[in-house]
Amino acid sequence: MARVVVDVMLKPEILDPQGQAVLTALPRLGVTGIVSVRQGKRFELEVDGEADADALARIERLASSVLANPVIEDYVVRVEPVPAQSR
Amino acid sequence: MARVVVDVMLKPEILDPQGQAVLTALPRLGVTGIVSVRQGKRFELEVDGEADADALARIERLASSVLANPVIEDYVVRVEPVPAQSR
Amino acid sequence: MARVVVDVMLKPEILDPQGQAVLTALPRLGVTGIVSVRQGKRFELEVDGEADADALARIERLASSVLANPVIEDYVVRVEPVPAQSR
Amino acid sequence: MARVVVDVMLKPEILDPQGQAVLTALPRLGVTGIVSVRQGKRFELEVDGEADADALARIERLASSVLANPVIEDYVVRVEPVPAQSR
Repeated sequence: MARVVVDVMLKPEILDPQGQAVLTALPRLGVTGIVSVRQGKRFELEVDGEADADALARIERLASSVLANPVIEDYVVRVEPVPAQSR
Repeated sequence: MARVVVDVMLKPEILDPQGQAVLTALPRLGVTGIVSVRQGKRFELEVDGEADADALARIERLASSVLANPVIEDYVVRVEPVPAQSR
Repeated sequence: MARVVVDVMLKPEILDPQGQAVLTALPRLGVTGIVSVRQGKRFELEVDGEADADALARIERLASSVLANPVIEDYVVRVEPVPAQSR
Repeated sequence: MARVVVDVMLKPEILDPQGQAVLTALPRLGVTGIVSVRQGKRFELEVDGEADADALARIERLASSVLANPVIEDYVVRVEPVPAQSR
């Protein structure tokens, strides 16, 4: 069993209003020193077997079709160690 | 300048219908070998200066108040290397 | 062709951090007089044929399984007039 | 006290992968007769006082800055009757 993570973020040139809302709220929350906040999506997939090249190619295909819209979003696929016991 | 990432996922015992929709769609997309899909949120914060203990404590506080709802969500705060050139 | 809308909101007793972030940001945006903001999801479904009792029953079933998590979310299914021309 | 709703949907010409995932999952869920699914965001705002022209103008401004990104999203602001008792 392996865990593969797909991170999906709006492309840097596209304004992210959700992140902007958090950034604007920071001073009233007493949080200083943060200059940018971007909000995206994180998908955690459990793969049955090894996260080998073949599995990653399938997930790559999945990411570009139903996890992200590549016209407006960037995505990154990566293998992540499964926590020893579920958090 | 440092990048801090906050990953927010529904707690494992709470059904995630969005992830479930993706999982159910997989066979028709010809993607096999995936046994679980969970969808969460990813926040990327740019910190002005070092991501030192103080900055992380502030972000931790932020995460538990406006990035995540700790009653239903787990979150993880971590420093991430900033890519050499943007993204 | 009919349009059915499913609105999904966190239950009122569950804190909504996204809405909270927007609410906290309002004063700095110069927006006054708003006392609560909640963020949810809106699904627009196009139904082939009439949105009759049968179609609505199917969408109701769909809503409770992959559009919303009824443990933490409320949802409302309703028929909406299709705009004369697409916006 | 009045309730104002802001619906935010990706523009029709922009692919919505989340809605696409739900649409693809429908046959396996035994749900037929649905030809399109789009997922967007719904914001419920409680206004202190009347939802008069002034309040709506402020919310309109808010919608175009931190609720939606008008480059990729359409939004609609409308007054909604407050339920007699909260659901």
